[in-house]
Amino acid sequence: MKFLTMRIFIPSPLRSSIHRASFCNSAIPREGRVSMVQGASRGIGLEFVRQLLEKDEKGHVVATCRNLDGSTGLLELKRRFMERLNILRLDVTDESTMEVSAKAIKERYGTLNLLINTAGVLSIPNVLQPETTLTKVQKSSLLYAYEVNAVGPILIIKHMWPLLKGGGSSGTEGDVAVVANLSARVGSIGDNRLGGWHSYRSSKAALNQLTKTVSVEFARRKDPIICILLHPGTVDTDLSRPFQRNVPDDKLFTAEFSVQKLLSIIDNAKSSDNGKFFAWDGQEIPW
Amino acid sequence: MKFLTMRIFIPSPLRSSIHRASFCNSAIPREGRVSMVQGASRGIGLEFVRQLLEKDEKGHVVATCRNLDGSTGLLELKRRFMERLNILRLDVTDESTMEVSAKAIKERYGTLNLLINTAGVLSIPNVLQPETTLTKVQKSSLLYAYEVNAVGPILIIKHMWPLLKGGGSSGTEGDVAVVANLSARVGSIGDNRLGGWHSYRSSKAALNQLTKTVSVEFARRKDPIICILLHPGTVDTDLSRPFQRNVPDDKLFTAEFSVQKLLSIIDNAKSSDNGKFFAWDGQEIPW
Repeated sequence: MKFLTMRIFIPSPLRSSIHRASFCNSAIPREGRVSMVQGASRGIGLEFVRQLLEKDEKGHVVATCRNLDGSTGLLELKRRFMERLNILRLDVTDESTMEVSAKAIKERYGTLNLLINTAGVLSIPNVLQPETTLTKVQKSSLLYAYEVNAVGPILIIKHMWPLLKGGGSSGTEGDVAVVANLSARVGSIGDNRLGGWHSYRSSKAALNQLTKTVSVEFARRKDPIICILLHPGTVDTDLSRPFQRNVPDDKLFTAEFSVQKLLSIIDNAKSSDNGKFFAWDGQEIPW
Repeated sequence: MKFLTMRIFIPSPLRSSIHRASFCNSAIPREGRVSMVQGASRGIGLEFVRQLLEKDEKGHVVATCRNLDGSTGLLELKRRFMERLNILRLDVTDESTMEVSAKAIKERYGTLNLLINTAGVLSIPNVLQPETTLTKVQKSSLLYAYEVNAVGPILIIKHMWPLLKGGGSSGTEGDVAVVANLSARVGSIGDNRLGGWHSYRSSKAALNQLTKTVSVEFARRKDPIICILLHPGTVDTDLSRPFQRNVPDDKLFTAEFSVQKLLSIIDNAKSSDNGKFFAWDGQEIPW
């Protein structure tokens, strides 16, 4: 998959600061946590960027997305937080963009304190539809959901690993860097009572297994990094919109509410949380 | 992936009875259970075929494999059980071969009482190596293991579903057809204490989720089919051979022993076992 050329108007001061994985100035002095939010153009990812920038006035955020087209939200944040927000293009299906991003982050900041993987696919009109029955299961859908929802995040962790190791021993935020992967309760095998959504469920179960596997290695190596999995609840975003019909009003969260809850879990994460799967309310979810 | 042309010598009486998913004579009268063993050219799959034929003298077995080259074991069984063993070519990465196989089984038997999916990939010399660390994780390995170990078995169930529905209501074997998917304890997320083997672990966790998802639909529709997941233990086969070094002698099973145990679980499976994950000794394994 290739990056699409940006077709939206970007004011010139912004234009110079949005790069194809290359920041405009390198190794500037900084204070505060450096967070990377992957999948930041909209929805939950965009809200993570906003809250991280608003809540920590010294924090820096690297927001990555595949395609800036139409991401007016991210560009608005760039106007407000010119110095502390950096936008990189990264495609979860293209490993070379992860390498280039890791290099750019290393040059600019040296380390990472927090990595949040949010990009995920559930449906694409006329291409990928959550399966309502086994007869609708297609190999192409299974493979695509796996590639985006499971393979992508793990390869990103692979490339950010050295930066996270540095961030975890930098003395900020409890001496561990945090990797938070957005999973989903429907990825839980033990909690699967409705069936359906084969591609999505399977890819998220795989993401859970991959994250657990990585967390075991980090612990064994005594790396100052913990990995957690997060279920955001059903959040009113583009991803869930076609499937909100049966969700009661009080169970349909705003991105603002969900991200507040998830950031509280991230900020309070302890070493003993490594490799665990939490819902937005802090409850552990069975595998 | 294409079928390789058979290069081994096959005596002519055998040759006429091994078809590219087409039996030599259709709708012959039969008694006993009809079982399909997918991945039957060697190892655990081959042993399932042998024991099913030896233990049930009225049972018929459809043995499928991608490539008969070198499967002397299966050809020997064909010599012994000419009438009750039928061999079809089926490639877990090629859905068209599943369609053709389902059609051939339907024409010959009408129904299926048992489907055992055994084919799986852990390593391929110079191509796929179980990962010892995150830095060795490759997208191509993740995708290939997923395609073979998770996608393949689920697509096979999709195509055999109508036949299993018929088999489950035929009055044999406790009025349910059984689907048994060979999983592995290392696919358990909750039991993952060593890390590594990312591609294999992830694909087996996904297989567990997909099998559970299918089992939920079968139960909801009141189809007379149950799906179970089986961990065979570490069995002395080509798959495990490069990784047996640290396995104590009493934990390294013969295929004969493991399959005896697994067949006992299959033969005693009840509706309440639907969607569960059992080790060779009948113990449930956490997700």
